Amino acid sequence: MLPPEVLERAQQALVDLDGSGIGILEHSHRGPEFMAVLERTEAAVREVGGIGDEYAVLFVTAGATPHFAWIPQQFLAADQTADYCHTGVWSGKAIEEARRYGTVHIACSGAPDFTTTPTACTWSAAPRYVHYTSNETIYGTQWSAPPTAPAPLVCDASSDIFSRPLPLANHALIYAGAQKNLGPSGISLVIARKDFVETGRTDLPPLDQYRTYVAERSLHNTPNTFGIFVIGETCRWILAQGGVTAMATRNEAKAKVLYDFLDQSKAWKPHAAKGSRSLMNVTFRGATKELEATFLKRAEERGLSGLKGHRSVGGIRASIYNAFPASGVTTLVELLDEVERGSV
Amino acid sequence: MLPPEVLERAQQALVDLDGSGIGILEHSHRGPEFMAVLERTEAAVREVGGIGDEYAVLFVTAGATPHFAWIPQQFLAADQTADYCHTGVWSGKAIEEARRYGTVHIACSGAPDFTTTPTACTWSAAPRYVHYTSNETIYGTQWSAPPTAPAPLVCDASSDIFSRPLPLANHALIYAGAQKNLGPSGISLVIARKDFVETGRTDLPPLDQYRTYVAERSLHNTPNTFGIFVIGETCRWILAQGGVTAMATRNEAKAKVLYDFLDQSKAWKPHAAKGSRSLMNVTFRGATKELEATFLKRAEERGLSGLKGHRSVGGIRASIYNAFPASGVTTLVELLDEVERGSV
Repeated sequence: MLPPEVLERAQQALVDLDGSGIGILEHSHRGPEFMAVLERTEAAVREVGGIGDEYAVLFVTAGATPHFAWIPQQFLAADQTADYCHTGVWSGKAIEEARRYGTVHIACSGAPDFTTTPTACTWSAAPRYVHYTSNETIYGTQWSAPPTAPAPLVCDASSDIFSRPLPLANHALIYAGAQKNLGPSGISLVIARKDFVETGRTDLPPLDQYRTYVAERSLHNTPNTFGIFVIGETCRWILAQGGVTAMATRNEAKAKVLYDFLDQSKAWKPHAAKGSRSLMNVTFRGATKELEATFLKRAEERGLSGLKGHRSVGGIRASIYNAFPASGVTTLVELLDEVERGSV
Repeated sequence: MLPPEVLERAQQALVDLDGSGIGILEHSHRGPEFMAVLERTEAAVREVGGIGDEYAVLFVTAGATPHFAWIPQQFLAADQTADYCHTGVWSGKAIEEARRYGTVHIACSGAPDFTTTPTACTWSAAPRYVHYTSNETIYGTQWSAPPTAPAPLVCDASSDIFSRPLPLANHALIYAGAQKNLGPSGISLVIARKDFVETGRTDLPPLDQYRTYVAERSLHNTPNTFGIFVIGETCRWILAQGGVTAMATRNEAKAKVLYDFLDQSKAWKPHAAKGSRSLMNVTFRGATKELEATFLKRAEERGLSGLKGHRSVGGIRASIYNAFPASGVTTLVELLDEVERGSV
């Protein structure tokens, strides 16, 4: 979900970018009009995230998945170990790719139920880096704070970036597919310490090395110009709302309404344990399959879509990203309550 | 440049895809609404290109550049040779990447001036595949027909796909960044023989193997959904114009007006030799730098932008892709003539 104001700006930009008379899809990525978009987007990302000059802000034409391989390919040699925190489907995919390149040590694991983000991790002797997934969309868990680790942190923040203040300290690299809180699919934002990027392999194709993006300002080849435009507008919208601190307050309040309801309900049971609950993806089950089916059907009738749990887990999942309004949460709770009462 | 009708459809889809009340950026890529977009886009691509079932139609979140590496990485073993036709900057980049993986034999070369597409090629004993760039945007040359080669053809068709009938015969794989004739940047179309794809390496990350896209219908991870929508609309627009045969007739007529003028001019000199001239990118130089500067300045005043030659070559470049109107060519010629007369 994206804010209506951002969609309106995107509509306008498709036919006339910044009064140029030419649309964003038609401007050269080396022309002054797009350069202005790139500059203001980077500036807005830096302001939203409180990102200093020691970090590069990169726009990569890819979802989050290719980064699962790019990171170990660049930073994990065959005789090195990286520590991975295993909290669900996404960290599982990242672990699978890392094993192609070096040794993976599972520092902590929420398997098999993934109801919690682990509270204790066992680190390897000298991890090259520590990877974690800040929010697990499928199981609905979220790290309330980054793990305390003995090596630079690498974070897949695809599903909660800019939903709360960015915990940059100790992070070497944060990557995020844009399509949850930032913009369209098909582009990712990477926030990377420049000195960490320099430690990567140099014998890979240019677009498999983050240093190429740093050196050429994400313009080695034509980037996803429309995606960069939308990310910029979304960040400006976040700033207009009061920034990530205000987003966090809003998101906590929205999630609380839903979890409070679920905790007192007899018909609905949240999946994630207290202390590990995601503010972005609230996952729960009905007491019966019929209850779930009734809820999904009524929700559909009221124009609430996308509530079915991920195909690998089932149940119900309410994704309440930044742009999801508090009123939508109220509607959800009313409907859950209505279905529960109807079932009594 | 994209047709105004396509941009209007894209504007509408940003806020309401197909009457669903929800925008294309906000729909799940696994939901029925986006599945309908994917299906109709693939159908339109197949109809425009006359593409049968032996070929897969794939949508890859990437420009053309990563394919320069992906192709040899999958299909060229260290002890094998691939033949490359070298016609300019883009083939040069493809050659550079292929050399990481196996032996590259330069079958023909237009270096150093790149005014022609070579008429004679010398093939290696048993090439794994033959790679060529159908249209060279920077030098303004184009293969009038694919090379006659002793191995499956692999074609970078980024800058002339669907500007004329697709010469599928003998092709194993055709790839094209979308941003010239198809849609937004940040997505590429790949048309690949399914049996050729199956001959690729199997030990690479899933998204580095075209077979993943074939098996999972470009949905291994979230694709560039907006890009797929726009490609579909552009293909439907091409069909409404009469298909690629009609596009070719239009494009030949547009280019002829420009080349006929340049050939009779004393002030302007086309770069590409007759027989090798691109119908997409017409490159030329003025008799003096001053003439070029005067032309560029006046063009800018009349709202004609993007006419400066690529930074690596200089001069003037008129890019007259599918959606560029014939009237625009007339305006260009009038202005070139005006500047020439003014200089006499």
